[in-house]
Amino acid sequence: MIKEVLGSFIENLKTAKNYPFILVIATTDVSLIPGITVAGASPELTHFTPAADAEFLVLGKCKVINTVPITPDGIPTPALVTRASLSFTKVTKLVVNAGSKILPKIPFIDVGGKPGGDIRKYSLDLETTQRIIENSTLLGEELSNTYDLLVIGESIPAGTTTAMAVLQGLGYNAIDKVSSASPTNPKELKRKVVLDALKNLPSNTLGKIAKLADPMLISVAGISLGFKGKILLAGGTQMTAAAAIIKEFNKEKLKDIAIGTTKWIVKDRCSDIISLAKQVGVSLIYADLDFSKSKHKGIRVYEEGYVKEGVGAGGASILAMVNGAKNEDIVRKVDDMYSELLISKN
Amino acid sequence: MIKEVLGSFIENLKTAKNYPFILVIATTDVSLIPGITVAGASPELTHFTPAADAEFLVLGKCKVINTVPITPDGIPTPALVTRASLSFTKVTKLVVNAGSKILPKIPFIDVGGKPGGDIRKYSLDLETTQRIIENSTLLGEELSNTYDLLVIGESIPAGTTTAMAVLQGLGYNAIDKVSSASPTNPKELKRKVVLDALKNLPSNTLGKIAKLADPMLISVAGISLGFKGKILLAGGTQMTAAAAIIKEFNKEKLKDIAIGTTKWIVKDRCSDIISLAKQVGVSLIYADLDFSKSKHKGIRVYEEGYVKEGVGAGGASILAMVNGAKNEDIVRKVDDMYSELLISKN
Repeated sequence: MIKEVLGSFIENLKTAKNYPFILVIATTDVSLIPGITVAGASPELTHFTPAADAEFLVLGKCKVINTVPITPDGIPTPALVTRASLSFTKVTKLVVNAGSKILPKIPFIDVGGKPGGDIRKYSLDLETTQRIIENSTLLGEELSNTYDLLVIGESIPAGTTTAMAVLQGLGYNAIDKVSSASPTNPKELKRKVVLDALKNLPSNTLGKIAKLADPMLISVAGISLGFKGKILLAGGTQMTAAAAIIKEFNKEKLKDIAIGTTKWIVKDRCSDIISLAKQVGVSLIYADLDFSKSKHKGIRVYEEGYVKEGVGAGGASILAMVNGAKNEDIVRKVDDMYSELLISKN
Repeated sequence: MIKEVLGSFIENLKTAKNYPFILVIATTDVSLIPGITVAGASPELTHFTPAADAEFLVLGKCKVINTVPITPDGIPTPALVTRASLSFTKVTKLVVNAGSKILPKIPFIDVGGKPGGDIRKYSLDLETTQRIIENSTLLGEELSNTYDLLVIGESIPAGTTTAMAVLQGLGYNAIDKVSSASPTNPKELKRKVVLDALKNLPSNTLGKIAKLADPMLISVAGISLGFKGKILLAGGTQMTAAAAIIKEFNKEKLKDIAIGTTKWIVKDRCSDIISLAKQVGVSLIYADLDFSKSKHKGIRVYEEGYVKEGVGAGGASILAMVNGAKNEDIVRKVDDMYSELLISKN
């Protein structure tokens, strides 16, 4: 079941004629800070996660690494949920590389980006920031000729930290409000990194974004600014930061946008997406998923606060539900895919 | 008016519900051979032409060079005709970089290709060739979820020479049958280069393609092999070589394909697309354009055999006509765009 938290957007999904699933990938050096993210078995491996997620989404297998991305505990990437959910739809999957250190070995759209640095120093230079916005806007404009709805997901390790930095830098109250793929959100570390990053902040918007934002957020904002139809931002608290950037450039645009996420993000006691979405002024819906009856422990742990969201898993589940799939259909498909992965691994 | 020469394909265009215009760009070092191509003001500048064509198509202006690509005589790129024609349609323009030395400063789809070398030595290594085919096939598959027709154009200087080499290498009689953007087709030079390239040819198909083909031909073939609907190959004699590569991998696929070109290619006395299309077994249609009443000399010279085709100009004109535009509408739009260019230049 799809649930509406803020605003009303579900009707737009039901009446949409033609939409793609876009995955925007990027990396920053923030994910190399030990303990800040579990989106990879080690800090170094986090730079492979977005490319591997993109490959799994499109191909059903990874090429840049041997298996699917896992947490240090061995829990698989939410790309599994995304791919399983999208099997109930007939959508074109488009991968946009906004700036990933490792490139996926599948076709992808290049928007002239670069990987982000460590935001305690600088994420991106102004020229790259401007180029990502312009090219992504152009991409959004072109896609308007084919589609009336875009569903945009993301994969970027440590993306909640850059999201917190952007939100705080743009004047929102975001400290301790962003989510984490771990049940024990490393809030103190994130806060420390963000407060460091906020020192010596440029006063103009573009300067703030270049200093604090990751390339994914900038590209998602650009695509949305250029697109003429409705947009479902498929992600958790990070997408409130994308919406905040969109608002800086075109406040009216927020009317056409909702964040589509999972139950685990909305119900999370260690973060507060409802507060963030309210502050920014963007609609919020979620897929009321329940993985407690999965055959696999690595999937059942979603109910304990592991993973929660990522690679547009919530938005993809929402699409599956719009196309008639029930929670048990999605769970069965996720289980089947996970079983296949375990077989091919052995 | 759209005219059918071989097979019957026009009905597929009329019934198609949703299609993009895809421009596949690449370069090879064949274009550096003095006198072999006029697709650039000098041999060195030919490497900028595909990126500049892509930019003009999407943006209406070029970024990698100051003005639009021109011949050494100052005649502008056929991208002008393509952009003017597509203004009568509502299509998404997608640029695929199959291997261009200069990258366009707009969003493009990367299929993991590389620029081709000089075919007298070697165009591409086997690994790159395989990667371009696989990634392009995957792209074609994904696009099947959105579109029921693809229109695929090209921009690659000296592409008719690599096309002749591929056709001849795959067993067709192509010597002196490929076209040229110049009214005085440099046939002797092309023949010499091709005959040199055909020496020490590997015996297997992939080896032949790697040695002789440019990245554009390989990518166009791959996209077509992966796509599940109808395909209009928007180009001149080069597209018979793309069709020949498609045939090597899947002969049945040719039933879904037609080449869509211009009157100037079909009526050209210095080349023979009808013979090539017949030999390969692919349908052929053309836009019966007449530029004799253009306000600009650089456009009227199409009637004297200059330019003829390129950047999918023929296929784009066909689309304009399917959407109700008449020859005079297209000429007026081309003239207006050319006038704007001349104003912005001064």
